[in-house]
Amino acid sequence: MKRLGTQTIQLDNPPTIVSTASIVGPKEAQGPLAKYFDQCLDDEFWGEKTWEKAESKIIKETVNMAVTKSGIAATDIDYCFAGDLLNQCISSSFGLRELNIPFFGVFGACSTFVESLCLGSVFVESGAATNVLCATSSHFCSAEKQFRFPLELGNQRPQSAQWTVTGSGAAVVSANGTGPFITMITPGKIVDMGIKDANNMGAAMAPAALDTLITHFRDTGRKPSYYDAIITGDLGYIGKEILTELSETKGYNIKSNYNDCGVLIFDKEKQDTHSGGSGCACVGTTFSGYFYKQLQEKKLNKILLIATRCFNEFYELSTRGKHSWYCTCN
Amino acid sequence: MKRLGTQTIQLDNPPTIVSTASIVGPKEAQGPLAKYFDQCLDDEFWGEKTWEKAESKIIKETVNMAVTKSGIAATDIDYCFAGDLLNQCISSSFGLRELNIPFFGVFGACSTFVESLCLGSVFVESGAATNVLCATSSHFCSAEKQFRFPLELGNQRPQSAQWTVTGSGAAVVSANGTGPFITMITPGKIVDMGIKDANNMGAAMAPAALDTLITHFRDTGRKPSYYDAIITGDLGYIGKEILTELSETKGYNIKSNYNDCGVLIFDKEKQDTHSGGSGCACVGTTFSGYFYKQLQEKKLNKILLIATRCFNEFYELSTRGKHSWYCTCN
Repeated sequence: MKRLGTQTIQLDNPPTIVSTASIVGPKEAQGPLAKYFDQCLDDEFWGEKTWEKAESKIIKETVNMAVTKSGIAATDIDYCFAGDLLNQCISSSFGLRELNIPFFGVFGACSTFVESLCLGSVFVESGAATNVLCATSSHFCSAEKQFRFPLELGNQRPQSAQWTVTGSGAAVVSANGTGPFITMITPGKIVDMGIKDANNMGAAMAPAALDTLITHFRDTGRKPSYYDAIITGDLGYIGKEILTELSETKGYNIKSNYNDCGVLIFDKEKQDTHSGGSGCACVGTTFSGYFYKQLQEKKLNKILLIATRCFNEFYELSTRGKHSWYCTCN
Repeated sequence: MKRLGTQTIQLDNPPTIVSTASIVGPKEAQGPLAKYFDQCLDDEFWGEKTWEKAESKIIKETVNMAVTKSGIAATDIDYCFAGDLLNQCISSSFGLRELNIPFFGVFGACSTFVESLCLGSVFVESGAATNVLCATSSHFCSAEKQFRFPLELGNQRPQSAQWTVTGSGAAVVSANGTGPFITMITPGKIVDMGIKDANNMGAAMAPAALDTLITHFRDTGRKPSYYDAIITGDLGYIGKEILTELSETKGYNIKSNYNDCGVLIFDKEKQDTHSGGSGCACVGTTFSGYFYKQLQEKKLNKILLIATRCFNEFYELSTRGKHSWYCTCN
């Protein structure tokens, strides 16, 4: 392992992503990537009484599927890196408790899946682990309830809003394997340009994605054309446009090979998700379902995956006054 | 780096904890460890308008203090590992955004400080980083608001309840230094015995602490007497008693050298915190303030620090029904 430039880590014995798995909700099942997911659910509850319990079940079953596909016994997986959007990361904590694998809780918001892959691959490359499990989940209904407004209120969503993906993505990363490999990591900085609108996450996240993108190119000496695909996690239509434009002003033309998981996962015309998909499961399922298979089948050989997360737009919601509180009505 | 037994990582070139810093709130300032903290605040707001903003300021200033003490330029710190208890980990995200250091968000609940130290030291030992910053915070008022009941309601707290420590602990970990060293890591599993009472965290966490404790001894071949001190994060009086008893039934006598940060940080007779302290800052400030200095002064030479976190007792709060929501009253 060695460091390149200011922020990048080069993995000299790059870990292999041995397997991935993905389960998605009913809306994602109607989207253009449906055939790539391992399982599409018919309803948001999946037989559970609450959205949170459904989300826990989704991540639990996704993880079991990834482990089964890997051919590695669960007892040979050294550590698990996982997190989600919910208070206390309850969906991953409860979804993974029966796995009996030592657990590192990660909070990268919508970037959790890729943050977990970064941490896991450093553990594998360094010899701290031989096999690790990386996983995340999100759920449209539980996320709206926690971060915006309960669905029962029937609030209208503005056009800049994104639709939290219901689903889970999981990957088993190992020291042993023949690829696809994780070869480099460029952990990003917090870049906050002051966007405070919880319904415009693309604009909030694009400057941070730009910063990491440029840093990666600067650290490695690579150009956008080096990659078959440059993929952001969940900038959506608005954020994608901002990132494309900002990149050009910085001298990097990414127009021909750049796309965003939030743009890819839903059909813009038919699905009415406004600015596209978002949430931990957006990049989690799109990578685990679609891109991983493209890499396996050599339809894509080199990809740059930039997960994105929000800070500021939730700040105002959470600190609006010292008299806020949490009400529960059964 | 090599693996010992089933869960333990041995760091062959152990990273040094170059510096620590701690800031605490007014209640902690009246406790028995007050003189060990770098700064004690007079009030919970520290000039801010909300508890969350105060918590952000506390972690920001603590981190600045730890970096200054380390003698390492902030630009030479490669990565930051941090998290807290709040929704979206807002206190650490906002407290650290001006630092301009690539950021890994961690959610280990009350174990966040030690989880950050584990991740950071693997990064340093492996060469992925030379210097890292590890930090956490918690705040009694913001934690009560988010996880239990708003203080304005004036609810009585049962005797088994613990008092979330207001404060922040931070540490700079480096490849270069003369100790104290981080020599081994034993990441723990999720152990859930079904305790669902948000006001009895000690009972919820003790079985997990036991599992990690025994695993560590089994992996390393060490006995309790190897350590000058065995310290848990925030089991409090109830959890401490349970862990001591359970350990004995498993053949490990820890009575003479075991204590808990939640027991140490408040005065049982005078401070009325019931079962003791808890929260991210409990182990964060007690280690950074008290135990780190004991190691530096060689009053203690070998310590085993077991941070603890809760799962189940918050589950019921967060999933009580699909009609829960978040109300904000300005």
